[in-house]
Amino acid sequence: MINTEVKHQTRESATLTKNAILVIGGAEDKVHGKEILQTFFNRSKSSDAIIGIVPCASREPSLIGERYHRIFSDMGAKEIKVLDVRDRSGANDSAYLDFVENCTGIFLTGGDQLRLCGLLADTILMNRIIERAQKREMSLAGTSAGAAVMGHHMISGGSSAESPNRALVDMAIGLGIIPEVLVDQHFYNRNRLARLLSAVSGHPELLGIGIDEDTCAMFESDGIMEVIGKGTVTIVNARNMTYSNAKEAKGNEPLSMHNLKLHILGYGDRYDLEQNQPYG
Amino acid sequence: MINTEVKHQTRESATLTKNAILVIGGAEDKVHGKEILQTFFNRSKSSDAIIGIVPCASREPSLIGERYHRIFSDMGAKEIKVLDVRDRSGANDSAYLDFVENCTGIFLTGGDQLRLCGLLADTILMNRIIERAQKREMSLAGTSAGAAVMGHHMISGGSSAESPNRALVDMAIGLGIIPEVLVDQHFYNRNRLARLLSAVSGHPELLGIGIDEDTCAMFESDGIMEVIGKGTVTIVNARNMTYSNAKEAKGNEPLSMHNLKLHILGYGDRYDLEQNQPYG
Repeated sequence: MINTEVKHQTRESATLTKNAILVIGGAEDKVHGKEILQTFFNRSKSSDAIIGIVPCASREPSLIGERYHRIFSDMGAKEIKVLDVRDRSGANDSAYLDFVENCTGIFLTGGDQLRLCGLLADTILMNRIIERAQKREMSLAGTSAGAAVMGHHMISGGSSAESPNRALVDMAIGLGIIPEVLVDQHFYNRNRLARLLSAVSGHPELLGIGIDEDTCAMFESDGIMEVIGKGTVTIVNARNMTYSNAKEAKGNEPLSMHNLKLHILGYGDRYDLEQNQPYG
Repeated sequence: MINTEVKHQTRESATLTKNAILVIGGAEDKVHGKEILQTFFNRSKSSDAIIGIVPCASREPSLIGERYHRIFSDMGAKEIKVLDVRDRSGANDSAYLDFVENCTGIFLTGGDQLRLCGLLADTILMNRIIERAQKREMSLAGTSAGAAVMGHHMISGGSSAESPNRALVDMAIGLGIIPEVLVDQHFYNRNRLARLLSAVSGHPELLGIGIDEDTCAMFESDGIMEVIGKGTVTIVNARNMTYSNAKEAKGNEPLSMHNLKLHILGYGDRYDLEQNQPYG
């Protein structure tokens, strides 16, 4: 077994300023150490940061936009703009499009993932954000609803406190920023394993990723995901599942899923998305 | 992939009356189909059943004892006795000891698992119950607290809604009826994966078994566990875990646990405890 401390030492300090995609489980610290937000800020060029805040998941976009604006401003960002798109035509605003070309980081706030996708999916603005983030020409972070949209398939809602079953989860199409993952957030905090399993049962080829509050799964350009923050990232890998009744199960009939892999990843733990294994 | 219906057909009807140990996740149906309680009754010789009810986990042993008495009486049991032991010396009562020699099924009610163990662990009465159940000379069922005590190590309490961490779970010594398992109950209903993982991290050699409400893991004499009832049984197998920080982690520091096996077992699914694999 590898000691955690050793793992941290082997982490190359060169990666500490590289562009990355940060998938945050919601309720990240905004007051004290702000580790996750500070990491996003560092990955967005620190004092040279040009940060765009996308508050479109929220029903109070001004308030939430202002809140993150203040945080990144206090950190010393060079320029910050709240991309407060209120209808799909707003995503054609050339001022926003120009801004996105030059920005070093985009932050997707929490709210309702369906609202975010409804406003921005397949707009020129969002397509360009995704393209630049996927090429790691800039950093991108999403928290809570902003995390949910990362995969091609997205958990749009659901319930908890029940055995895994197909009726427990509502699925929709996400933004496909990291297409191969299926993200759930507020994970242990809101008892969401059953809903993540229910989602994975319908898409066993996708990697289920449950992220706790104030915790971040950070996707580096080299295919490594690293955990930072206070909690854990739970990986459910059903790619070698030997049996499931998901195709036949009706309504809230409990699901069978045999031979899944489960990883609980804590601070500094890394996961190799190519090898589908914890790394290092 | 095997179709559920086929699996059910291959289940031998001969096993339907064999003595078994039934580990119930709490809140089993006591009103309508009563499937789990009826199964226990059938496994306890049906109309020839001589059933002992152990209400000692409960702070209201008379009430709860009476409730199960009525249920098994309505089913047509031949004889029923509530073994209402109130202090450890009560476990030497020869009337109880004689009864246990002849009974065909013992039912452990819910309540507080520490209370149950405090009153009965290592008494002549409980040792004899365990011996007869392990030899499958009779059936034994435990629900909720009565399920928690099944392993040698027992979850005696804990919390939820947090990342897995050592401080999340309180451990104690159980009754060791099925020594190699670590049972948690009300599983998805009460968000208990994190606490089961926290417990397993300290005992990776044990098989973690999370049982939902109105759901039963039924342990047959041939080393096969079968699921009945409304929900699922979740198996966490950490025996081939490749990394954990559990030994070094302090207090509520999040746990890392890499390469666990996870199985979600629904109605009729079976698990081979020798092979450590779903069966059939």
